[in-house]
Amino acid sequence: MGSGIVSNLIKMGHTVTVWNRTAEKCDLFIQEGARLGRTPAEVVSTCDITFACVSDPKAAKDLVLGPSGVLQGIRPGKCYVDMSTVDADTVTELAQVIVSRGGRFLEAPVSGNQQLSNDGMLVILAAGDRGLYEDCSSCFQAMGKTSFFLGEVGNAAKMMLIVNMVQGSFMATIAEGLTLAQVTGQSQQTLLDILNQGQLASIFLDQKCQNILQGNFKPDFYLKYIQKDLRLAIALGDSVNHPTPMAAAANEVYKRAKALDQSDNDMSAVYRAYIH
Amino acid sequence: MGSGIVSNLIKMGHTVTVWNRTAEKCDLFIQEGARLGRTPAEVVSTCDITFACVSDPKAAKDLVLGPSGVLQGIRPGKCYVDMSTVDADTVTELAQVIVSRGGRFLEAPVSGNQQLSNDGMLVILAAGDRGLYEDCSSCFQAMGKTSFFLGEVGNAAKMMLIVNMVQGSFMATIAEGLTLAQVTGQSQQTLLDILNQGQLASIFLDQKCQNILQGNFKPDFYLKYIQKDLRLAIALGDSVNHPTPMAAAANEVYKRAKALDQSDNDMSAVYRAYIH
Amino acid sequence: MGSGIVSNLIKMGHTVTVWNRTAEKCDLFIQEGARLGRTPAEVVSTCDITFACVSDPKAAKDLVLGPSGVLQGIRPGKCYVDMSTVDADTVTELAQVIVSRGGRFLEAPVSGNQQLSNDGMLVILAAGDRGLYEDCSSCFQAMGKTSFFLGEVGNAAKMMLIVNMVQGSFMATIAEGLTLAQVTGQSQQTLLDILNQGQLASIFLDQKCQNILQGNFKPDFYLKYIQKDLRLAIALGDSVNHPTPMAAAANEVYKRAKALDQSDNDMSAVYRAYIH
Amino acid sequence: MGSGIVSNLIKMGHTVTVWNRTAEKCDLFIQEGARLGRTPAEVVSTCDITFACVSDPKAAKDLVLGPSGVLQGIRPGKCYVDMSTVDADTVTELAQVIVSRGGRFLEAPVSGNQQLSNDGMLVILAAGDRGLYEDCSSCFQAMGKTSFFLGEVGNAAKMMLIVNMVQGSFMATIAEGLTLAQVTGQSQQTLLDILNQGQLASIFLDQKCQNILQGNFKPDFYLKYIQKDLRLAIALGDSVNHPTPMAAAANEVYKRAKALDQSDNDMSAVYRAYIH
Repeated sequence: MGSGIVSNLIKMGHTVTVWNRTAEKCDLFIQEGARLGRTPAEVVSTCDITFACVSDPKAAKDLVLGPSGVLQGIRPGKCYVDMSTVDADTVTELAQVIVSRGGRFLEAPVSGNQQLSNDGMLVILAAGDRGLYEDCSSCFQAMGKTSFFLGEVGNAAKMMLIVNMVQGSFMATIAEGLTLAQVTGQSQQTLLDILNQGQLASIFLDQKCQNILQGNFKPDFYLKYIQKDLRLAIALGDSVNHPTPMAAAANEVYKRAKALDQSDNDMSAVYRAYIH
Repeated sequence: MGSGIVSNLIKMGHTVTVWNRTAEKCDLFIQEGARLGRTPAEVVSTCDITFACVSDPKAAKDLVLGPSGVLQGIRPGKCYVDMSTVDADTVTELAQVIVSRGGRFLEAPVSGNQQLSNDGMLVILAAGDRGLYEDCSSCFQAMGKTSFFLGEVGNAAKMMLIVNMVQGSFMATIAEGLTLAQVTGQSQQTLLDILNQGQLASIFLDQKCQNILQGNFKPDFYLKYIQKDLRLAIALGDSVNHPTPMAAAANEVYKRAKALDQSDNDMSAVYRAYIH
Repeated sequence: MGSGIVSNLIKMGHTVTVWNRTAEKCDLFIQEGARLGRTPAEVVSTCDITFACVSDPKAAKDLVLGPSGVLQGIRPGKCYVDMSTVDADTVTELAQVIVSRGGRFLEAPVSGNQQLSNDGMLVILAAGDRGLYEDCSSCFQAMGKTSFFLGEVGNAAKMMLIVNMVQGSFMATIAEGLTLAQVTGQSQQTLLDILNQGQLASIFLDQKCQNILQGNFKPDFYLKYIQKDLRLAIALGDSVNHPTPMAAAANEVYKRAKALDQSDNDMSAVYRAYIH
Repeated sequence: MGSGIVSNLIKMGHTVTVWNRTAEKCDLFIQEGARLGRTPAEVVSTCDITFACVSDPKAAKDLVLGPSGVLQGIRPGKCYVDMSTVDADTVTELAQVIVSRGGRFLEAPVSGNQQLSNDGMLVILAAGDRGLYEDCSSCFQAMGKTSFFLGEVGNAAKMMLIVNMVQGSFMATIAEGLTLAQVTGQSQQTLLDILNQGQLASIFLDQKCQNILQGNFKPDFYLKYIQKDLRLAIALGDSVNHPTPMAAAANEVYKRAKALDQSDNDMSAVYRAYIH
């Protein structure tokens, strides 16, 4: 999470303990006044509310269920807020084990990117323990510009996957348009100018096209994570027998981009799948 | 074209002659002071510059090459501006026959919808005779908020197809997201609220989602025309061996929507392909 | 498994114990001389070699790891042969727990359908414990016309998913061709006659087309299982960043068929996704 | 067309006149006793029945309507048999102009490849003038093992496109399976062995896999032509609002193969789209 958030939380008078598998990633937070936890279990033991954000369903489960994991620190009344973007089954399973130990659980995945995170401008989708959601309101204000409470556990996961599915599919479409412009001899800059004059104009469209025009694929939202979200969104559709042909087509394009070593670039690097 | 445009042109002191295969579609223009031409050939004979806008490549060719068509009225110096969205081959062929008779040719397809047309807020993409483009500048100002000159004939057709391909694919993605929300028990209104808070927010996204939430598919941009443009954009990619998997997936969804009798509804009615 | 197999095994002098969650499904086998086990654990306890075949990864795990499951009966030297079609991760996990208790493990998914199973004409793909594979050879001869040993555990799962991916995608293509014939006014029977004269002619093509022409979708290979296999094959591609656009397109068509209540029909009922 | 055919026709007592844009392609036929025509018009003038086979709709039109084209030689009673695989609109247009001059028209596209052509084992799909079809029966016997008469002009074009759509989509599926085997560490030869043991076994499957395993992409059926047929089949679906998602996915894969310079290789070279 962005350093601005930790800094905000400390200014608000909260005591903040941080942990990361790669300890040096915590250095910046510690400089701002956070203390370093030794294990997830220790963080949970010493804090009222623990916020977690990891990369995928497996990491989310390992964090809770693994050795010295979150579950070891859960006691009645302890609060756990999982901000990872995972599937509804995973988050529901985690909620069950934490609640069965007397803990309180909230899922709260975030929509946005690194820059928005640093600026405390994330959109937070929350579901689960409504009281915990309200207890978190000042923290969420420090992190994001808006939060939504979506009811029972699993709803935030589903909604976030749908949001990211729309974003990931649109990104592939943008890349497809820009490459088709190039191979047919049209100016990509002019295409962007035209799109920016029309009703499709959005911050996302402009920023992602700028990335591509500048060949700057520094990760803002990792390509490997948007592909993971497309995969999970397709599986969500699968679970209810709902066809998602656009997401399915996009997913295949991102897989090609991953095969071209673009996993750790920004999602806009899906562009490269179209030019190789 | 929007009545506002004809009205603007007349206010600017131009004499306007109009023709439509269905004569009553001209009534409004005539009330505003336009005169009625009897055939395309007659319109071209009596006007310095003729603007045309029809539905697809076949209609564009018939208008020029058919009986009492545009070509019958072309004499040296006559100007013909085709504002239809067609493929580059068609517009190039029309340019050749008109120029071979001494006429001047400009292609000028427009990006936008009925409302923007009425408001004179279209984006105009022009290519062909640069002098004619400059001669049209006051007319284009009456019609649109911006115009681009893109070089040789065919470029505007290509660029417009790419713009509409992006739009048509994104529309299918939006419909896919809204239906996936519904079948997984999420609120479509909340999904829209979340998207409107994020970087994807755009007029297009908001308006098309509103259409769907309200079940209002009154045509702003006909579904059958966006499908035609997807088809032509895919063919454009075909001509240069460039894969367009997103557009190809979208095209299949629109074909399903057409099979469900949505051709004459707005493009947002592609939503119905996902719920049947 | 087909009754012919159990009957063959008994004739060969083997003592056969059977178990199914739905006990009456065992009746036929019992009439042929098999005895009924009360739980999976009991079957494993009383037999040298246990063969299992269930519907999907979750069922395969539950059978081994669940209450009174296979694992409860595993002791050093016990042999477990899982003939289910699942993903490589699942089968590898099951192999590990069984081997860690001293058991021997072989995966042996089968390619074929109900009819071939009854006739002992299945193709068996085996991987894991080579010695166990050899010990099973007479049993495998009772079941199938051919078996392949593919090396380490997981290979048979992968290969089977690829085989079924090819089959499932081709089935969707066949349905697409037959419906396109119909809607364009061509005879479906003539299309089949033409295909049967050409190099594409195969038993599969002929039988599946016959099913469709006769509107007979009695399950030979359940549609829900081929869709499951497509899903797992796509995930297999995902794990190695390999695009599978044909399987992805097919998967979406099968999802539509499932939404149209075709899950428990034969895979050829994917045809119905094209006519609704 | 295969040399065996011309040789057969001559042995049957027919006088054969041949023409090709590239005259040396006729050398073999001339050695076998055919005479060389100077233009398409001349061939038609001197023969009772003219057979033609070219690459695509544009070539088929040029041959008939171009300078010194077929139409110049058509007089009442002359027979023209177009064996090209084109779309129904093209063949219908050609039929009209030829019949309007008093000629008789039969479309007769062929299913098969170079080898089958040499062996006189093609499958012939005919439509149009039934009497002409019967007059051609001995010639068709020289060329093919079977012929079908499908009714009015356009039906053979449609049926052939459907047959080739099935073939082209299946070819892409085969390539997808073989590459997925490779990248997941499975033997491609073993995959083929397994498929050859199962119900999918066909001459096509075996030959195309052999091509790929041997890296031998010598054209038997040009990749560029199967892509053209997929494009026309998709357009056929488009004309009746019928979705063809499998063909659409396949078409995009072939476009990638064309971008990788595989146009003039065999259709099995679509494999290369999956490994680059």
